[in-house]
Amino acid sequence: MSSTGKNKRNQNRNSKYVKSNNTVQSNPRIAKKKGRGIQSKQVKKPSVKISFLGGLNEIGKNITLIECENDIVIVDCGMAFPDGDMLGVDLVIPDFTYIEQNVDKVRGIVLTHGHEDHIGGLPFLLSRVNVPLYGTPLTLGLVGNKLREHSLFNKSQMNVVNSGETIRLGCMNIKFIHVNHSIPDSVAFAIETPAGTIVHTGDFKIDCTPILGDTIDLSSFAAVGDKGVLALLAESTNAQRSGYTPTERLVSESLDNLFKRAEKYRIIIATFASNVNRVQQIINCAEKYGRKVAFSGRSMVNYMDVAKKLGYLSLPQNILIDIDMLDKFPPEQIVLVTTGSQGEPMSALSRMAYSDHRKVMVGEGDFIIISANPIPGNEKTVGNVVDELLKRGCKVIYESMYDVHVSGHACQEELKIIHRLVKPKYFIPIHGEQKHLRKHAELAEFLGMDRSNIFIPDIGTTVEINEDYMKEADHVPAGKVFVDGLGVGDVGSIVLRDRKHLGQDGLIIIVASLDVYDGHVISGPDIVSRGFVYVRESESLLEEVKKLALDILEDCAEKNIHEWGIIKNRIKDEVSKLIAQRTRRAPMILPILQEV
Amino acid sequence: MSSTGKNKRNQNRNSKYVKSNNTVQSNPRIAKKKGRGIQSKQVKKPSVKISFLGGLNEIGKNITLIECENDIVIVDCGMAFPDGDMLGVDLVIPDFTYIEQNVDKVRGIVLTHGHEDHIGGLPFLLSRVNVPLYGTPLTLGLVGNKLREHSLFNKSQMNVVNSGETIRLGCMNIKFIHVNHSIPDSVAFAIETPAGTIVHTGDFKIDCTPILGDTIDLSSFAAVGDKGVLALLAESTNAQRSGYTPTERLVSESLDNLFKRAEKYRIIIATFASNVNRVQQIINCAEKYGRKVAFSGRSMVNYMDVAKKLGYLSLPQNILIDIDMLDKFPPEQIVLVTTGSQGEPMSALSRMAYSDHRKVMVGEGDFIIISANPIPGNEKTVGNVVDELLKRGCKVIYESMYDVHVSGHACQEELKIIHRLVKPKYFIPIHGEQKHLRKHAELAEFLGMDRSNIFIPDIGTTVEINEDYMKEADHVPAGKVFVDGLGVGDVGSIVLRDRKHLGQDGLIIIVASLDVYDGHVISGPDIVSRGFVYVRESESLLEEVKKLALDILEDCAEKNIHEWGIIKNRIKDEVSKLIAQRTRRAPMILPILQEV
Repeated sequence: MSSTGKNKRNQNRNSKYVKSNNTVQSNPRIAKKKGRGIQSKQVKKPSVKISFLGGLNEIGKNITLIECENDIVIVDCGMAFPDGDMLGVDLVIPDFTYIEQNVDKVRGIVLTHGHEDHIGGLPFLLSRVNVPLYGTPLTLGLVGNKLREHSLFNKSQMNVVNSGETIRLGCMNIKFIHVNHSIPDSVAFAIETPAGTIVHTGDFKIDCTPILGDTIDLSSFAAVGDKGVLALLAESTNAQRSGYTPTERLVSESLDNLFKRAEKYRIIIATFASNVNRVQQIINCAEKYGRKVAFSGRSMVNYMDVAKKLGYLSLPQNILIDIDMLDKFPPEQIVLVTTGSQGEPMSALSRMAYSDHRKVMVGEGDFIIISANPIPGNEKTVGNVVDELLKRGCKVIYESMYDVHVSGHACQEELKIIHRLVKPKYFIPIHGEQKHLRKHAELAEFLGMDRSNIFIPDIGTTVEINEDYMKEADHVPAGKVFVDGLGVGDVGSIVLRDRKHLGQDGLIIIVASLDVYDGHVISGPDIVSRGFVYVRESESLLEEVKKLALDILEDCAEKNIHEWGIIKNRIKDEVSKLIAQRTRRAPMILPILQEV
Repeated sequence: MSSTGKNKRNQNRNSKYVKSNNTVQSNPRIAKKKGRGIQSKQVKKPSVKISFLGGLNEIGKNITLIECENDIVIVDCGMAFPDGDMLGVDLVIPDFTYIEQNVDKVRGIVLTHGHEDHIGGLPFLLSRVNVPLYGTPLTLGLVGNKLREHSLFNKSQMNVVNSGETIRLGCMNIKFIHVNHSIPDSVAFAIETPAGTIVHTGDFKIDCTPILGDTIDLSSFAAVGDKGVLALLAESTNAQRSGYTPTERLVSESLDNLFKRAEKYRIIIATFASNVNRVQQIINCAEKYGRKVAFSGRSMVNYMDVAKKLGYLSLPQNILIDIDMLDKFPPEQIVLVTTGSQGEPMSALSRMAYSDHRKVMVGEGDFIIISANPIPGNEKTVGNVVDELLKRGCKVIYESMYDVHVSGHACQEELKIIHRLVKPKYFIPIHGEQKHLRKHAELAEFLGMDRSNIFIPDIGTTVEINEDYMKEADHVPAGKVFVDGLGVGDVGSIVLRDRKHLGQDGLIIIVASLDVYDGHVISGPDIVSRGFVYVRESESLLEEVKKLALDILEDCAEKNIHEWGIIKNRIKDEVSKLIAQRTRRAPMILPILQEV
């Protein structure tokens, strides 16, 4: 059962409702008993457990598990980009242990939207457990592409759900509620469980004049809120920012002005490949000013392919040209839309900046717009790319000059509106670093919520909630699993520690062949170094190392020390000491002995 | 001749005026001839050459050479911090080749202020050439400390010059003009050369209500401007920012409010160790609210020692306590002033955040103020430190909340004032990345200067200026020299490339002993890997590598291939291919052969 068509009907009829036999026992100890006086005669409602495998105290790899009775529903399954200290790591995914251990209970994965930090972990999870997916058409279109790359498409179960529709997974009814965000077809979830309703906002903003589709479905938030919500899980990305996030439409005006100013220049615009609405605005401007549009960068081309196919991009006839056709048009008839807005070293824009792009040479005839803000940590690389472009004589619009970018996340006033509409009993801030989560918690308190009804979780946390209390329950395995090439999880802390050591200080290898009988040196010791010093200028130092190693080896042979561990440690210690004395450096010392 | 006392008199009587015999011939070709009509009857003025060894298209290692007739004066000699891709590099200094080649002409180094990016390169230059230094008392006090660490203090020639004074070095008169900046005792220079006057602003802002000392000496800028200035070299750090930089005094008010709010908490404030005025304001607040002050972090302690000794810090009696005394006072009577405002991993604040500080444990009783903005590139590390502190329950004031930091650099309106006062014929923006330099050039154009009278240099550029033209002259050697431990310049591009490779992908070493006669394998091949995979989980892969290497070695022996270069290359190529196929990774492959 696989489908990506835009108008595919709601699949909830197909989803199995598994009646649970073993209900999770709700804990009789009540952490915070409400003094209602009369003991309720009704059967006690069960608890719902919410577990976080990612997305807290970090940016990326968002994934939340909602568990009630015998059913688990997973919300999103994202990846994260590695930090600077995760050397050689390509990407970071959540630890899926808890899911694998409880795969029998998992009824499905519901997806809020198609950003990498919400869907990027799917291929790695689905290669281990086959769980049905539920998402809006664009989201599943993007997921489909991803699964095809990993040869998982055919065996995966993708169920298109349109916003406004409700599906049933196990004991839960899940309503897909349309929200605004920097990618179309984003949704929030109202998850009706036997314990009560959980609202998960996904990523959202309130845009009353969106480029495509409707304003966030505030009415549904209101209706859900009126019926009573046990807990709200709301994103916290912009919880530190006061006021409102401006409408995406603001960018149109700025782009229009810049297109006017660009006149005879070729226009190059870098933005997020996933920001389909941004690209739509660029196309609209291009049409108005009689320019053709070309796409550059693998992910830009891929996203636009999916968006076109599913009808999320409205294209005037013949406006698109292939990047190979650029030379056929004068510069003032061109807009090149490219990846690289974060200064990523391998991206199209970086290659242009460093004259390393195979098809595009930039220079004084180019008017370059970076339509994105640097994600924290990328400021420097973006700055370097801008500097290189400037040196080549390009005009560059950057650093939120002229409102060429707006955020896709709700600021404080928007968050307040959602809190007021949803009126939850409990609140859990999600999707953010500690400072964002705390700020969001403060906001909820400011709105009048009791501090004890707010919980700031971490990854690995399980929160148990029922009508009487919210409390931290058992922890579940959670962490960062590194993907390096084809290897998933085979790069751990020891490998990273070695990489860091090698990268910082290089290494010195000391190789010798020893007589199998008496331990005397037969060949070597030979000294090989890499990443330590420029060898030709340090010959005498390496000679010293060689002599020292030889002395140690011969001394050990004389003293009948044949335990290689001991010999190697002596070499390591004494060579390290010598090198430190001479250079104040600490390369990795690697003695290798062979018996002959 | 060595002196650091605050009231030491102007040393210009001692500076030698070397009459030049070999004047630099001014180039008869006039790049841009002004059509004044009448040929001047006067003797033609010589040219002045300005060479930049650092500080352009980079942040840090500021150093400028002013050369006229047979004399060179060096302005500043800074260092830079390594970028993320300069693995294992401790710091970066300028290439001093040109200075060493022309040491006979060098009359002295004049210093604008005591920041590392202006004085940090001195020990490395002075260990090669002994050149007299001229600076204000605080600047030389800090330089002195630095030279002591490098055992260069006794042989160095330090000459104290107070702002307002003029010294003569060779054919140049150099006036030290007081400016405001984020460290006291900063100066600009008006350098009167036979070719005309060059004004070099150093780092500055206009602070009409400074904490210590006077407002920038605008009158001197005016007087110099009225007499006629050939060229202005002005810093560009904040050239992108409109308006004015607020006065340092603004911070006092914010600190006062925060001290009030902090009540029963211990206060910890992180700021730049060199920002003596900031620390003064903290001390003033501490006095008002009855708190003791302790310093944490090596550089904080060092800077404060010098500042105290030279009278730049006004200290109420008994306000300072040693960090070991913290426990003797209740939290509400403590202010701890610490390094680490940039989230540097080894700094005191980072150690506190990660519970790794030997003397300070932070938690819910702490009110922490980060009184600094992250320098571009440090946003992420600062953010991580903040998150860790929040997790430990500290209150944290960060990210320019509450005006607890102001810049030390002039914004656009201040730059305009200096341009208007100095009224230079030519303008060269300095001290900034390309975007800052360009913006500053645009500002000069906006003020009415002809584009052709503005020159944006790069490091290694020499600009030749005289009354008739400004043009780019020969290039001088310039670049980044890496300091790693005791080694200066012995880490170059090959070593860095290897470090990067090792750091990203790790390495596989293949060691074998071969029969000296027939080349057959006597021992090994043994496989050793580091930073590649967790070995225990990849035994079969490493076994495959071993078998492949053995096959190659035996095949070579059979085929009578004894050229080690050829054998090693075959091993490298084939093992790389195998590893790439199995893992999609590219570790460094290092075959080591020994003859027995």
